[in-house]
Amino acid sequence: MLILASRSPARARLLAEAGVAFVAENASLDEEPLKHSCRAARMSAREGALTLAQEKARIVSSRHPQALVLGADQILDDGNRWFDKPKDLDEARAQLLSLKDKTHELVSAASCLSGGALLWQAASVSRLTMRAFSDAFLDSYLDAEGAALLGLVGAYRLEGRGVQLFARVEGDFFAIMGLPLLELLSFLRDRRVIGS
Amino acid sequence: MLILASRSPARARLLAEAGVAFVAENASLDEEPLKHSCRAARMSAREGALTLAQEKARIVSSRHPQALVLGADQILDDGNRWFDKPKDLDEARAQLLSLKDKTHELVSAASCLSGGALLWQAASVSRLTMRAFSDAFLDSYLDAEGAALLGLVGAYRLEGRGVQLFARVEGDFFAIMGLPLLELLSFLRDRRVIGS
Repeated sequence: MLILASRSPARARLLAEAGVAFVAENASLDEEPLKHSCRAARMSAREGALTLAQEKARIVSSRHPQALVLGADQILDDGNRWFDKPKDLDEARAQLLSLKDKTHELVSAASCLSGGALLWQAASVSRLTMRAFSDAFLDSYLDAEGAALLGLVGAYRLEGRGVQLFARVEGDFFAIMGLPLLELLSFLRDRRVIGS
Repeated sequence: MLILASRSPARARLLAEAGVAFVAENASLDEEPLKHSCRAARMSAREGALTLAQEKARIVSSRHPQALVLGADQILDDGNRWFDKPKDLDEARAQLLSLKDKTHELVSAASCLSGGALLWQAASVSRLTMRAFSDAFLDSYLDAEGAALLGLVGAYRLEGRGVQLFARVEGDFFAIMGLPLLELLSFLRDRRVIGS
């Protein structure tokens, strides 16, 4: 049995659309303290995302030692800081204003554990460039998307109206949506979780 | 008013999810003869896809001279031939077997016309590598996807179980799904069809 240790609807959708059978169970990790200690340890965003993905999988693996558990994490790094999920629409607005007209990196990491042991991990780094959108555009974007933005680091979803924020997107689209899917599917085939 | 000159559900979904208002109207172009004449004229797949996208937009533009009309096309080129949409599941199987364990190019083109005049066009070329999947996998894939594959050149959708066919995907994901969306949105902003 594959357990997705995440409450992210985007990740669940990616797996379901790809035809992978799984159940989802939230690790309920308090992410921010761990993120901040990764940051304090001078980890790269890649190392930080891998650490968080692994920790989420480890928590769920401890509850289900026989299962294969998939943890995942994304870190948005603008070169100065790692972004957290916005707590309200004011914070979403502030994040978008600070990303506007600049390029940022989005690291997407995933880890698979079984019985607490790390079996596989992968991370993919994408580079996204926001255009110099107007205040009127930002207002209409926040109005249209509303509370849906609060679960999203950087306050955007490319598979929605968020694509209008961008001038350029370089990277693996699956990873941007939440999982380095092609690498994950390859691992799942090797483990005979899915057919090859 | 923006008219999408296509019956493709994937293209309609891309525009709708991006928050672009439009209506869809099928050009009802008989694509294969035009494709074959492009091929006979030794056009590249890029030129062919642009020609087809433009022709679809031109047909709908002639019916609605005031409207902005978006035509689109994709050509799958394996280096030897351009693929058509499979007519039945046997043809879908044959296409997949001939793409298996190889890299092919997928050209995605879009054109905007108004009053019959070409205002904008873009084309994006992606490179996709299918893995050496087993016959058992192919059977289960054809069973699971069924008639949904008949509208799809190459008999796959990356935003579905089709992702399991691939080892590697290089290119713009929006273009692979059916539209060079970032370039299109930029044009639509310039024309003030959407806010900037």
